[in-house]
Amino acid sequence: MMAEEILQWLREDMPHWDLTTDALGLEDVCAEAVVVAKSRAVAACTAELARALRILGLDVEAPKKPGELVEPGDIVLRIRGPAGLLLALERTILNLLIYAFGVATQTRRMVDTARRVAPGVRVAATRKTPPGLRVCVKRAFAAGGGDTHRLGLSDAILVKDNHVALVGDYGEALRRVLEQRSFMHRVEVEASTPEEALTAARLGVDAVLLDNMSPDEVRETILLLEREGVRSRIVVEASGGITPENIAEYAATGVDVVSTSYPLLYPARVDLSMRMRRLDQC
Amino acid sequence: MMAEEILQWLREDMPHWDLTTDALGLEDVCAEAVVVAKSRAVAACTAELARALRILGLDVEAPKKPGELVEPGDIVLRIRGPAGLLLALERTILNLLIYAFGVATQTRRMVDTARRVAPGVRVAATRKTPPGLRVCVKRAFAAGGGDTHRLGLSDAILVKDNHVALVGDYGEALRRVLEQRSFMHRVEVEASTPEEALTAARLGVDAVLLDNMSPDEVRETILLLEREGVRSRIVVEASGGITPENIAEYAATGVDVVSTSYPLLYPARVDLSMRMRRLDQC
Amino acid sequence: MMAEEILQWLREDMPHWDLTTDALGLEDVCAEAVVVAKSRAVAACTAELARALRILGLDVEAPKKPGELVEPGDIVLRIRGPAGLLLALERTILNLLIYAFGVATQTRRMVDTARRVAPGVRVAATRKTPPGLRVCVKRAFAAGGGDTHRLGLSDAILVKDNHVALVGDYGEALRRVLEQRSFMHRVEVEASTPEEALTAARLGVDAVLLDNMSPDEVRETILLLEREGVRSRIVVEASGGITPENIAEYAATGVDVVSTSYPLLYPARVDLSMRMRRLDQC
Amino acid sequence: MMAEEILQWLREDMPHWDLTTDALGLEDVCAEAVVVAKSRAVAACTAELARALRILGLDVEAPKKPGELVEPGDIVLRIRGPAGLLLALERTILNLLIYAFGVATQTRRMVDTARRVAPGVRVAATRKTPPGLRVCVKRAFAAGGGDTHRLGLSDAILVKDNHVALVGDYGEALRRVLEQRSFMHRVEVEASTPEEALTAARLGVDAVLLDNMSPDEVRETILLLEREGVRSRIVVEASGGITPENIAEYAATGVDVVSTSYPLLYPARVDLSMRMRRLDQC
Amino acid sequence: MMAEEILQWLREDMPHWDLTTDALGLEDVCAEAVVVAKSRAVAACTAELARALRILGLDVEAPKKPGELVEPGDIVLRIRGPAGLLLALERTILNLLIYAFGVATQTRRMVDTARRVAPGVRVAATRKTPPGLRVCVKRAFAAGGGDTHRLGLSDAILVKDNHVALVGDYGEALRRVLEQRSFMHRVEVEASTPEEALTAARLGVDAVLLDNMSPDEVRETILLLEREGVRSRIVVEASGGITPENIAEYAATGVDVVSTSYPLLYPARVDLSMRMRRLDQC
Amino acid sequence: MMAEEILQWLREDMPHWDLTTDALGLEDVCAEAVVVAKSRAVAACTAELARALRILGLDVEAPKKPGELVEPGDIVLRIRGPAGLLLALERTILNLLIYAFGVATQTRRMVDTARRVAPGVRVAATRKTPPGLRVCVKRAFAAGGGDTHRLGLSDAILVKDNHVALVGDYGEALRRVLEQRSFMHRVEVEASTPEEALTAARLGVDAVLLDNMSPDEVRETILLLEREGVRSRIVVEASGGITPENIAEYAATGVDVVSTSYPLLYPARVDLSMRMRRLDQC
Repeated sequence: MMAEEILQWLREDMPHWDLTTDALGLEDVCAEAVVVAKSRAVAACTAELARALRILGLDVEAPKKPGELVEPGDIVLRIRGPAGLLLALERTILNLLIYAFGVATQTRRMVDTARRVAPGVRVAATRKTPPGLRVCVKRAFAAGGGDTHRLGLSDAILVKDNHVALVGDYGEALRRVLEQRSFMHRVEVEASTPEEALTAARLGVDAVLLDNMSPDEVRETILLLEREGVRSRIVVEASGGITPENIAEYAATGVDVVSTSYPLLYPARVDLSMRMRRLDQC
Repeated sequence: MMAEEILQWLREDMPHWDLTTDALGLEDVCAEAVVVAKSRAVAACTAELARALRILGLDVEAPKKPGELVEPGDIVLRIRGPAGLLLALERTILNLLIYAFGVATQTRRMVDTARRVAPGVRVAATRKTPPGLRVCVKRAFAAGGGDTHRLGLSDAILVKDNHVALVGDYGEALRRVLEQRSFMHRVEVEASTPEEALTAARLGVDAVLLDNMSPDEVRETILLLEREGVRSRIVVEASGGITPENIAEYAATGVDVVSTSYPLLYPARVDLSMRMRRLDQC
Repeated sequence: MMAEEILQWLREDMPHWDLTTDALGLEDVCAEAVVVAKSRAVAACTAELARALRILGLDVEAPKKPGELVEPGDIVLRIRGPAGLLLALERTILNLLIYAFGVATQTRRMVDTARRVAPGVRVAATRKTPPGLRVCVKRAFAAGGGDTHRLGLSDAILVKDNHVALVGDYGEALRRVLEQRSFMHRVEVEASTPEEALTAARLGVDAVLLDNMSPDEVRETILLLEREGVRSRIVVEASGGITPENIAEYAATGVDVVSTSYPLLYPARVDLSMRMRRLDQC
Repeated sequence: MMAEEILQWLREDMPHWDLTTDALGLEDVCAEAVVVAKSRAVAACTAELARALRILGLDVEAPKKPGELVEPGDIVLRIRGPAGLLLALERTILNLLIYAFGVATQTRRMVDTARRVAPGVRVAATRKTPPGLRVCVKRAFAAGGGDTHRLGLSDAILVKDNHVALVGDYGEALRRVLEQRSFMHRVEVEASTPEEALTAARLGVDAVLLDNMSPDEVRETILLLEREGVRSRIVVEASGGITPENIAEYAATGVDVVSTSYPLLYPARVDLSMRMRRLDQC
Repeated sequence: MMAEEILQWLREDMPHWDLTTDALGLEDVCAEAVVVAKSRAVAACTAELARALRILGLDVEAPKKPGELVEPGDIVLRIRGPAGLLLALERTILNLLIYAFGVATQTRRMVDTARRVAPGVRVAATRKTPPGLRVCVKRAFAAGGGDTHRLGLSDAILVKDNHVALVGDYGEALRRVLEQRSFMHRVEVEASTPEEALTAARLGVDAVLLDNMSPDEVRETILLLEREGVRSRIVVEASGGITPENIAEYAATGVDVVSTSYPLLYPARVDLSMRMRRLDQC
Repeated sequence: MMAEEILQWLREDMPHWDLTTDALGLEDVCAEAVVVAKSRAVAACTAELARALRILGLDVEAPKKPGELVEPGDIVLRIRGPAGLLLALERTILNLLIYAFGVATQTRRMVDTARRVAPGVRVAATRKTPPGLRVCVKRAFAAGGGDTHRLGLSDAILVKDNHVALVGDYGEALRRVLEQRSFMHRVEVEASTPEEALTAARLGVDAVLLDNMSPDEVRETILLLEREGVRSRIVVEASGGITPENIAEYAATGVDVVSTSYPLLYPARVDLSMRMRRLDQC
């Protein structure tokens, strides 16, 4: 499905035509482009990108699958076709992969850190993705070993502070949502106090998001849920300000899920480059 | 022009409908949303976003213009309309502004650092922007005091290593390009040695990009151009691995332009939040 | 979000221009159009349509909310604007509402029939919707009191016969899916025998779809699940050939959900018409 | 031209990605899908669909041409390609063909019924097609032996009651339209009385649509036209409430055309299914 | 419907942003733009353009309706709104109107010339319109007093030489087409000899296009049709190489229609300019 | 990039389907179409069109490259594929190429005329291109030997009379623009007097456009620039009312560039036709 987006990104970078390639007369020269890793990273979005480029008529190999480790010097993508198209796509392909690899690599690090102290914990993504890149970024997060969480507003229910403010009552908001939702969609709710978490668990909400609580407050909330005998009924998720530095501390509280925007906003630094050469024939 | 893109991003986040808002019955409730700064930053893309949101029929004020300094607690945007639309737009607006403010803020820092040692130097952006966000990112870079550089492949000529590899000869590539270009478009070329920079200056190229040279090599190249009497004929740009740490050193070499992807890939951390409340009427 | 779709449907019906309106010189005449019910029905998609038409600049009232009962003579929609636009939209609006009202009305009947014998049962929709009308049809189903079920392929997991055939093993397919899914998405699986349903319940699948079983087979499966002590762990859904005639029989088996394409493929017959008159001014 | 629409329908059903196929790891498995008839029907839209799927890069055979009779067990479509794409397309293809076959089959029945009493009569479609499916539905109607009638508002003129209401005078409306129309476009007008039909015939209108008249009123109108010597000058069409039960009665009145929405709103029940299997290679 | 096209044309002219307006800081200045005629012309597409610009939120007056005569100094369009949008639209609006007025003006001249010798003759357009401008150009032709002829391939049947070549037989092609066409669509056929025209008339074709015949050959064909008693049954159209110089000669042959690409390819020279001034408030 | 535009133009010409081809049953017949020149011309847009048609799956040869001279009888394009697609594309391809060849041919004539008296002069295009055809027209102008000038509003700065009117001061407008522009974009400004041209040159503007000056005024302006020692610092362009008749006179004044809309508005008359034949297999 990304073929159309690639065309759109191409138009963004090349609204009229590529002045340089045209002036050099390279448009119809047959060429090969290889994307080479210049740093260690976790691959992501390579399979998706390869499918999309094939639809544009290019001959593509993607030796590194999403989730695979890439070492400096590894070839990540090999594309053959007219030089005009390869040169026009160069920046778009690199911009996309550098970001995707960076997300996957940072996610992998945070997942590893969290699992060292809590082997069963899930590290989940937020929706703080650059507009237009949701699919690629969520899949890169998964390639790094993370959980995608909601993909958008149409695949699960999440009641947040603004919703409660507009409805005017926490319990009322939960009751409405539990009554209206399809049995095929989960319901999660933000809780800012242990008591709200308890209310959520008792009403039958599937998951509760403890937002901006300290590790101690998270622990206290879990204790309350256990004491009241509802711990196993609800997925407990901690969120807000999670970084590579504090993720282990949160994971150790006993939560089921730690969710974070960190890899989306601060992807690992990854270096990729594209090298081209003439081919005798396409 | 961004109204269509905002609709597209909205569809990305909400492909069917917002399950939460719909279940809560908030769709047609009249509400006000304010975007509030929670950290110091340089504003960006607020005017562009306000224009786009107005086209979608919302009542919008944007008290902070692109380039203005924002302090914690400042209101950045105030929007009135149906709660369903405001809730659906929340994540898209925040994701966009957090990134744009981050780019502008980081750019401002690097520009200030560079100008302290070289008051007339320009700090320019590369094309390493997240696919689909070119306009917003380039304008955020400008809001931070930077130079946009090329907006894409259709507004100026830039001969890079892959072009030279495909043509097979450095001088030949330059001659072709100078002959074909419109008088309304500039020509820049990458140089990897002082000699290539000299060739470019002698052939009448407008600007030369010294890619991945050390500050000493940049200085040496400038000296050669001065010695050969062609320094004033050509804009000299240094690029490759420029960071907040080394930008002053590059700026001090006497180049006209230092270009960098740093603010695009590692924007400053900026915190914005959106708060909503019911209004009696729209 | 439907404004763009309405424009697209308008282009479908009027690719060049409306030959009749143009020849009559009515394009810029100010007019009012009312959509009037000519039969009893459950309203649907009126709020969504009104929002979309307002974005196109029309003055719209929608006195009948989705889910409300409509009697012959009731006004369903009142629109004011240039006659050219109203005449061009006439067929699109009627085609959409007649189908949506028909779906909601048929759903309401089937829900009432099922609940008479099993008050807590849910009646859910399939994805057999006319291409391009998914949102409107699913919301019409909900307006009739039904459960939307999955909205598409991106909001829940449903393992069907073709998946099992391609994977080659039922248990293996379930294990893969349970391991990969986000904690925010539910997993359902088709079962063609009571034993498969038992496997699904034991592995921790959220819901099982008993496809094309007779009411007796459904009952037998539920008995097995109860006997094995896993009935409460899994949502049981019956599907395949459900009609207004047999829905009560299925509902009486003790399933949680009966799902059906019937209202989507055979909506109730609903009659709506649009009447226009000149206004002195817009 | 339908390739773009298919991509749009695919996006509707799969806005992010197919959670099930992805979790099962089936995306790039090579597979074959066959669409098999499970009931008797008239084929429709198979050639159009095959052309569109080929543009998406799939290997497609369509052994049943539009208009051909299909028996249970017959293969209607055979597609080879990556399982990810086939599974994603499954519902869209079936939803489209089930509706198209249903329209063609119902049309064939009504045409046969009408022609038994009036061999030369045409059965024509209205524009009551689900928004977005006009081309497929009109072609399915033609595959069933019907006449497409107008495809939209841009290919012929049809003056209806709302037009006359806005113009204010029946004769005046006809005169304007006859003066303005291109010689390449036909003009039809609704008549609610025999006298209006006579006015239309005398003014030189190409066709008259007797809307919601009983068979007796239709006959009376035809008699008046014959008596006034203008019967041969004008095509007479009866419309409004035509069903499989009363179509013969209308056809027997001597009209040239009977038009009906029946096959569009109540297509015949057609059952098709798609079965997939792994292939060793694509 | 042209609002979307105008946005698309705007994007064509301004893919990123307007460098000049942005640098001058004029984006949000309130302004008025007037389009003034600098030569005599027939107005066209002004009403359509005004409707489209209003949808973009601009305040528009269009004092000159399509078909009205415009004198030097006349105001054709008056638009108020933000200067950024007006400046961005300037070239698109002028390019469109200059072409449309030119087509209408040239058409008026040719219609006047033809009607002087044959008062009832129609002057019709071909489909030789610049890709993307069909609607505007056909309406401009109509504004000049011409007949639009077919708007495209979906509103009437026209059998041309390539069709006959592919079918292999003239009569066979006509018979197929007459059998398949809807009663709501006309059928025209090219004839290269008087005999072919006779065949067409006898088979019941609605119109015959005498392509590239001399005026004498046209006359001879008409004589043959009259002699055979079928002249009144068929519309006779002459086409091919019709210019302002020879149109009277063709009109005088007794044909019903003379069709020509001349005004589309060689529109009259029309001069329009746009002047802007600041307003105190919008 | 033109593949999408070609599909859009195809939809414009064929919004539903091709009634003629469908009625004749030619849709899937395998055929070859050749575009043949019937007059002398300079080829243009053939390479671009061939690339676009290949993406639509057609087998295309383009023996005449942009800029090559074409003689009557020469084959310009040879396309193989299903007759349905070839017939649907016929008009779009011809309309595009006839216009493009006409622009290139007229441009070549004017360039030749200008260079006879001033061998180094550039002939540049304006932005008066039919909306939607910018890329093809600018490239056709270049194929004729002309300079494209700005491609739109995003690739260079051009300060015109309306800008100055809105800013209120000529010098102020220039200073703002020079301060804000990127070093990669050129700045040009209109001058209506020799003094304004001098101001522009002194402020460091890259080019000055002498709009609607007589050849004598142009000469006088150049003399002033020379006298003041700034002639070599600025590109001097003459524009406004340039025709094949007076271009030599303007070229002889010593300007660097003469810019003209003439070939865009009055392309040379070029005749191309498309002939088709059946092939045994595709």
